[in-house]
Amino acid sequence: MMRTRPLKVALLGCGVVGSEVARIMTTHADDLAARIGAPVELAGVAVRRPDRVREGIDQALVTTDATALVKRGDIDVVVEVIGGIEPARTLITTAFEHGASVVSANKALLAQDGAALHAVAEEHDKDLYYEAAVAGAIPLIRPLRESLAGDKINRVMGIVNGTTNFILDKMDSTGAGYQEALDEATALGYAEADPTADVEGFDAAAKAAILAGIAFHTRVRLDDVYREGMTEVTAADFASAKEMGCTIKLLAICERAEDGASVTARVHPAMIPLSHPLASVRGAYNAVFVESDAAGQLMFYGPGAGGSPTASAVLGDLVAVCRNRLSGATGPGESAYAALTVSPMGDVVTRYHISLDVADKPGVLAQVATVFAEHGVSIDTVRQSGKDGEASLVVVTHRASDAALTGTVEALRKLDTVRGVASIMRVEGE
Amino acid sequence: MMRTRPLKVALLGCGVVGSEVARIMTTHADDLAARIGAPVELAGVAVRRPDRVREGIDQALVTTDATALVKRGDIDVVVEVIGGIEPARTLITTAFEHGASVVSANKALLAQDGAALHAVAEEHDKDLYYEAAVAGAIPLIRPLRESLAGDKINRVMGIVNGTTNFILDKMDSTGAGYQEALDEATALGYAEADPTADVEGFDAAAKAAILAGIAFHTRVRLDDVYREGMTEVTAADFASAKEMGCTIKLLAICERAEDGASVTARVHPAMIPLSHPLASVRGAYNAVFVESDAAGQLMFYGPGAGGSPTASAVLGDLVAVCRNRLSGATGPGESAYAALTVSPMGDVVTRYHISLDVADKPGVLAQVATVFAEHGVSIDTVRQSGKDGEASLVVVTHRASDAALTGTVEALRKLDTVRGVASIMRVEGE
Repeated sequence: MMRTRPLKVALLGCGVVGSEVARIMTTHADDLAARIGAPVELAGVAVRRPDRVREGIDQALVTTDATALVKRGDIDVVVEVIGGIEPARTLITTAFEHGASVVSANKALLAQDGAALHAVAEEHDKDLYYEAAVAGAIPLIRPLRESLAGDKINRVMGIVNGTTNFILDKMDSTGAGYQEALDEATALGYAEADPTADVEGFDAAAKAAILAGIAFHTRVRLDDVYREGMTEVTAADFASAKEMGCTIKLLAICERAEDGASVTARVHPAMIPLSHPLASVRGAYNAVFVESDAAGQLMFYGPGAGGSPTASAVLGDLVAVCRNRLSGATGPGESAYAALTVSPMGDVVTRYHISLDVADKPGVLAQVATVFAEHGVSIDTVRQSGKDGEASLVVVTHRASDAALTGTVEALRKLDTVRGVASIMRVEGE
Repeated sequence: MMRTRPLKVALLGCGVVGSEVARIMTTHADDLAARIGAPVELAGVAVRRPDRVREGIDQALVTTDATALVKRGDIDVVVEVIGGIEPARTLITTAFEHGASVVSANKALLAQDGAALHAVAEEHDKDLYYEAAVAGAIPLIRPLRESLAGDKINRVMGIVNGTTNFILDKMDSTGAGYQEALDEATALGYAEADPTADVEGFDAAAKAAILAGIAFHTRVRLDDVYREGMTEVTAADFASAKEMGCTIKLLAICERAEDGASVTARVHPAMIPLSHPLASVRGAYNAVFVESDAAGQLMFYGPGAGGSPTASAVLGDLVAVCRNRLSGATGPGESAYAALTVSPMGDVVTRYHISLDVADKPGVLAQVATVFAEHGVSIDTVRQSGKDGEASLVVVTHRASDAALTGTVEALRKLDTVRGVASIMRVEGE
């Protein structure tokens, strides 16, 4: 029952991901047609630099006028792999207005304007799919949105940025400092010349916003996500982590509060036990751990970036959207009915590992312990070590709110006997 | 835009899984309605023992006449969690004929009669979903069938039976023998009184047939799956594995041959390196490793059985099928267009670890090595150890076909100097 009129696809962007999408559409045309139930045809490719040679792409399809391409009116699916906010946002909106469905890999745009884009898609009864926007090739959006649609998700905790995982893994395995590990990541092509988006957690925060929104059926804005980068993680932190039987990962954590009525989303470095499945995620790989009421603990693991893996996710969406086109249906759109409160970082409850430089004299521990107690932060373990009149105190707390911990640290800094707070690291996954 | 007329669900079977499905449908009715776009109503529950008290289920819904329930004509979705071939097969077929879509958790039935059931579903333009049939709560069918629909899957290798993984993990971590570990699994409720389906690999073989069919877009019959249980794995095998830096897992392996034109599916115990992600899957957990052209290496991990996890998968399917009902569409059906050759076990190419008991005299190694060479099986390493006139030889081969290895072993058994073949174990995941 194969339809012979092909579905027409417009490709916006032909970089690392776009060229791979175009290549697979050509080399695997028969497979795609069989799986969709109709052939798919690359109807146009919008690029910025038309003179660049793109192997395997008919030069006649290449245009610099992306707007005209999405306005053609005969396009079934627009694949947006430009990235960034504009012109991607306007092009996607225009695509919906002119009858196309959209597959996007654009995490920044989806995190910032997902709700508005979903609204336009719904208004025009079109699909907006974006599996590739989070964790590259790893099927994650679809499992969260569809496979777990009958379950209650309580936590999504993941390594969703390959660059920072490469750097942290390197620091862990070689004892290197942050800069040295970053330099190696840059030399190997894992980090960009300007690594800010990765190492400061912006990339992971965008993904956290998207994941939290889907997991909790609640709109979570990028501004709702607490973000802390990993540039201040030191070799000493890794040494402390090892003593705890832990390693350090940059985690995106989306959690439902214990009362069930509010949620939080955050990105920061954290210690996790070596026995936790996320601890053994090496190199530039990504992995996301999901906890739900009925399913229990699930983990999804794979390459989180790269041209081919991202193209795999884009093409999976393309097949789904094309099938929907043929059946006249649309897939699941935005689901934000739960509209839970998104709480600020101060409400997050977790454990903390705090290293203090203190004066090496009697009574310091008592002073420090009193400050913790006054702020309602219960201490699990303390380790003291002295060196030449100076001493260090390592305190690991029981679960406490971020607000209580922040208050504790402010008060500690005011103690004469506390020379400095060397590091504060959250402890997750226990 | 909530529709007010509810979608009607008939539940066939109310055991561990069914009662959990009914419970969640009741306690999470509002969430399910919001996610589907219409309320869902439990319209009937078919059971064998109607007098058994089922907490939270209206006794008026309970019937022993499953056939009458699926024939009612007003049922939108039949959820089949009876298991086994009959009466499940006839009930599912009857459900399609009377206008219902079907969600099933029945691996045995799907493995044996999946093609025929898909054909009936398609004839009546209805959905047949069965995420719960493989690896419990782990989203696997949907990712393979939808997320990777634009990719080319080359290998699916997984731990898909929790009982056997619990036993093997116990043997690995405690040095226990098979019987001792099985007894503990039975005492803890991980193994059934008659553990045959698990320990002889029948359960895993059914899942392998389902996974291979979906991954390769090819019908793979249960008879096409090579099956070897794990009852003969010994503590000595684990000791050998440890020396190789490996552990032993019961694996379901579905592979595309290197020429791309044929596939194989098999279940057997195998050594895998400790560095492989599947090696660290503990207890009764399941995990499936997928390799594809574009996505690369993915892994899906979670609880492979149990009432709640299986119910999570069933309810995810229920939401999807209900959405399809509302939009008048159906999801992806059977995809067997590729119709690749399913090759027999003899064509499988892998590595082998062989322990031989041999006479402790000069020339034995030369004889043994000659037999391997004559059969075209290349030796990677050999280790000899002597003890009181007896000696053992441990041979690890390079990649060779199962047929070549079988020929080699037959010839080895005929050598006077070979007293016995203590064990043959495949080595995977390198």
